Amino acid sequence: MMLVNGQPRDSVSALDRGLSYGDGLFETIRFVGDKAPLWSRHTQRLLAGCARLKIPAPDPQQLWQEALLVSMGLEQSVVRITVTRGVGERGYAPPVLSSATRVVAAFAMPAVPALVYKNGIRMHLCQTALADQPLLAGIKHLNRLEQVLARAEWSDPSIGEGLVCDQHGNAVSATAANLFAVIDGVPVTSTVDRCGVAGVARAVLLDALPTCQIRDLPLTECLRASELFLSSSIRGILPVLAVGDTVYAPGPVTRAMQRHWRDLGFPTEQA
Amino acid sequence: MMLVNGQPRDSVSALDRGLSYGDGLFETIRFVGDKAPLWSRHTQRLLAGCARLKIPAPDPQQLWQEALLVSMGLEQSVVRITVTRGVGERGYAPPVLSSATRVVAAFAMPAVPALVYKNGIRMHLCQTALADQPLLAGIKHLNRLEQVLARAEWSDPSIGEGLVCDQHGNAVSATAANLFAVIDGVPVTSTVDRCGVAGVARAVLLDALPTCQIRDLPLTECLRASELFLSSSIRGILPVLAVGDTVYAPGPVTRAMQRHWRDLGFPTEQA
Repeated sequence: MMLVNGQPRDSVSALDRGLSYGDGLFETIRFVGDKAPLWSRHTQRLLAGCARLKIPAPDPQQLWQEALLVSMGLEQSVVRITVTRGVGERGYAPPVLSSATRVVAAFAMPAVPALVYKNGIRMHLCQTALADQPLLAGIKHLNRLEQVLARAEWSDPSIGEGLVCDQHGNAVSATAANLFAVIDGVPVTSTVDRCGVAGVARAVLLDALPTCQIRDLPLTECLRASELFLSSSIRGILPVLAVGDTVYAPGPVTRAMQRHWRDLGFPTEQA
Repeated sequence: MMLVNGQPRDSVSALDRGLSYGDGLFETIRFVGDKAPLWSRHTQRLLAGCARLKIPAPDPQQLWQEALLVSMGLEQSVVRITVTRGVGERGYAPPVLSSATRVVAAFAMPAVPALVYKNGIRMHLCQTALADQPLLAGIKHLNRLEQVLARAEWSDPSIGEGLVCDQHGNAVSATAANLFAVIDGVPVTSTVDRCGVAGVARAVLLDALPTCQIRDLPLTECLRASELFLSSSIRGILPVLAVGDTVYAPGPVTRAMQRHWRDLGFPTEQA
C-alpha cells in the first residue's frame, strides 16, 4: 500500500522535482508488526536532510500514522518514506513557495538467508568510486546514481553486497549499508563527511561501541581487518565472509553487535 | 501538454527509479514552431547517456513525433524529454528486464530580456563546488542536487546565472549553461570530463571555433578574461556582464557566436 501526500495513490506528478532533479530525500525503515525500533533516528535524519536541502520538513507524527497505515497487517515490512521539494516549474531554482511531496509505501522485507547472518556475506570490490561532495555527504538524498552504478557491477546472486571506495582509496561503505572493521583490536568505521550516508544502524552501533574510531579507512587496512561487518537498518548486522578473494571470519565484535541488534527488537534470525 | 510513454498523462509511478534514485537522463530542447535545429545533437547525447547508464534507449523517431505533438501550436517552446530506468523493486540493483519510462513535455520559453543579449547577464559566484565524478560527467543525468544547491544561493532577480567551480578552483560552468572565455585572444571552454555537462550548444560552438581550447579553466584566469559568455541550448549565447564585482564587456567572439546561433534558425532577438 502507498500514500502520496496522505492519499491512497501510486503515482506522483511528472513535474515533481524528485523526478526532475532527484531533489529530495528518503528513508527505508524496518517495521516488525507495528513497531519500528529505530523510528526516531530515521525521522531525525530525514529532518536533518530537509534542513540541509531547505525542503519543508514533514510532520513526524503524520509520517508515523501513514507508516502504520501502509504497513498494517504485515508481520515484517520495510516502509520507504520519500520527501521531495514538490512540483516545480522547469529550472533548477527552488520554487519560492514549495510544497513538499510525501510518499509513504510499504514493501516486503528482503529475504536474507540465516546462513548469511551466521557465516557472512560475500562482497564484490566495486570499481565505481564515490565522489567527494561534503554538501551532500551523510544525508540520504535521492541522487543515487553512484550506488546504482556500483550495484550494477555484479549480478552473481551469491554476492550480496559491494564494497565501495572513495577516489582516494578509502573503503567507504557497501552500496546500501555502512561498514565496520576491527583493526588491531579496535573497531573502526569510515567517516561519511565527504561521501557516503550516515546510516541509522551505524549510529546505533556507534552508541554501542564507544571506542569505535570514525576515520578514513584505507582499503589496504580494510583487507587486513580481523573482522569486517555491515550495518543496515533493514538487514541488520551482516558479517562479511569475503571481499573478492579476501576471506574473513565473524569475530567477537560482530557477534556482540548482532546480539545488540536483536535486543533492539529485531527478530532473532539475525543473531 | 505532456506524454508519459506516449499516453497523455501528467503523472508517473511513485515507484519509478527516476524518482527513487534519480536513475535517468533528460534533455531540454528548444523548438521554434515545429523546428528544433539542434534535435539530432540532443538525441545523440541522450542515447550516449543511456548507453553510459545502460538504460534501454528510446526510439528517436518516436521521440520526435511525441515532441511535435506536445509542442504543437506553440510559436516557441522548450520540450523536455526525461528517460528513466522505469519502475523497479526497492533497492539499487537495476531490474533484469527494465522498461524505460519516457516523459515528453512542452514548456513556455523562458523570457530573456533583449538587453541581456545586448549587454550581458549578471552572475553570482557560487560557493557550491561540483564534485569530480568522471563516471557521470558530461551526460545530462537526473542527479542534479549540486545544481539545485548552486541555484539556491541567490534570489536577486537581477542576477541571471551562477558561476560554478569544481573543488580545485576551476570555473566549470553556469548552473544551467556552459562557459566560454577568451583569454589572451584564445577562446577556452572548461573540460567536462570530471564534472559538468557536455552542452549541446557548447558542441555547436566548438564546431564553430576550431581553435577553442578545452581544458581546466582556473577561476583566476576566468576573472581576467577579455570576454566571457555562456552557451545554452534554450537561452542561446549570453554575454556575461559581471561575475560578482568583476565586469566584462561583450567582445567580438561573443558577437560572432551570437550571429552563428541566430543563423542556426533561432530568432533574432538573440543576436
